This record gives sequence, C-alpha cells and structure tokens, in this order.
Amino acid sequence: MADINKIAQEFTNFYYQTFDTNRAQLEALYRPTSMLTFEGTQILGVKPIIEKLVNLPFQKVVHQVVTLDAQPSSTAMASLIVSVTGQLVVDDSTNPLHFSQVFQLIPEGPGYYVFNDIFRLNYG
Amino acid sequence: MADINKIAQEFTNFYYQTFDTNRAQLEALYRPTSMLTFEGTQILGVKPIIEKLVNLPFQKVVHQVVTLDAQPSSTAMASLIVSVTGQLVVDDSTNPLHFSQVFQLIPEGPGYYVFNDIFRLNYG
Repeated sequence: MADINKIAQEFTNFYYQTFDTNRAQLEALYRPTSMLTFEGTQILGVKPIIEKLVNLPFQKVVHQVVTLDAQPSSTAMASLIVSVTGQLVVDDSTNPLHFSQVFQLIPEGPGYYVFNDIFRLNYG
Repeated sequence: MADINKIAQEFTNFYYQTFDTNRAQLEALYRPTSMLTFEGTQILGVKPIIEKLVNLPFQKVVHQVVTLDAQPSSTAMASLIVSVTGQLVVDDSTNPLHFSQVFQLIPEGPGYYVFNDIFRLNYG
C-alpha cells in the first residue's frame, strides 16, 4: 500500500498548507456532490463548503498532522479513505486543539477530488 | 440524512457493546476484503483482524462515544462512512484515553459489513 500512503501524504500536505495560507483555494478540491460535516454541521457542494471554511472565525491557523492512515475505499475504483489526527493552533492562542479529520478521495483525471470530509475537534 | 445517522448510531451501539463484552463476536461484521488499520498496523481479512482484536493486551475495556458523524460514501450504492471520536477505559485504569475511529460500511442483504476500519488513540 506504498502508493496509497504516498497519495494520502501528498494530499494532506497540500490540503493543510492551502488551508493555512489561503483556504478559498481549497475550492479546487471539491465537486457539486462533495460533503463536509464540520463539527456536526452537514454541508453539500463546493460553494457552501468554501463559504463555511472561509468564514470560520479565525484569521490565522496552523495545522500539524500527528497521525495519517489510508486505505483503499473501493474494489471498483482507486478511491481512498484518509484519516488524520493532529493539532491546530488558531490566531495567537498558545493552546493547541486536537482534531480528527476523515476524507474520501475519488480519482478524477490525473488527480483526486474530495467526496467526503468530516472534521471534529477533540476536547480533552 | 436521518436514515444514515440512524444506521451509524445502531452500528456503533452494536460494535462497541460487542467489543466491550466479547470482541471475538465482531467476526460477523468483517469479510475477506475487510481492512483494519490499528495504531498504524495494517491488517487484511476476517481472521487476522479478529486475532488482532482478541489479543489486544487488556482484559476489560469500555468505549464511550463522544461524537458520531456519518455520510454516504458512494453515489452508486448505499454505503456509508462513519466517523467516531470518544474515550475508552481499559482494565482498572482511571485515565480515559481518547480515540478516533473510522468505518466504511457496505450494504449486504438486510445489513452491512465493515470494509474499512481505522483506529487511532489520540495522545494529548
């Protein structure tokens, strides 16, 4: 499963780097059927998803991935599930927050798009 | 998505209740193509998965689900992704451990089986 781990690594590098620098650009990763569940709120489609992400109430955010796991999600196509746990720091906080995030990536042309995206903060 | 949330709720109730009382019986939920990634270790197939779970080094465990999210995982069939965060207590510890777990459930007859299962402890 070397390939799938490499894809997951490249995807999460790109995703969190883009999130932390200009999250409007994440638009390229979603499609009209894409779903985001953010802290229990269900959102469908590119524009609503990007609106949600862009309007999150912080200016600065830095994600740090702690664990990254990937598995093929289908026997019929090269889709994959990516499960991330990590920490994030918002604005000038010194308190990292723990988060869990799950993606399903669907192949499209030479790349992938995000079909499923589920994000949760983990409170201690 | 009322249905999908109900399925996810019933599945996780059954899964963790079975895990906490007789984890060998989880065998019924897996198939030869099922994958478990447990703390980064990748395991394929019913027997290896159950061996892993049965041989985990604790006698007693109690899972408590804190957040539960579900999304359809395919436009072609009624499969779903279930994302759980929660706490577990092993043996006589008084320290709950935080965990994240992701399942993909695939419809089969009147029920579902687990195709993907990714488990991680979240250390603070």
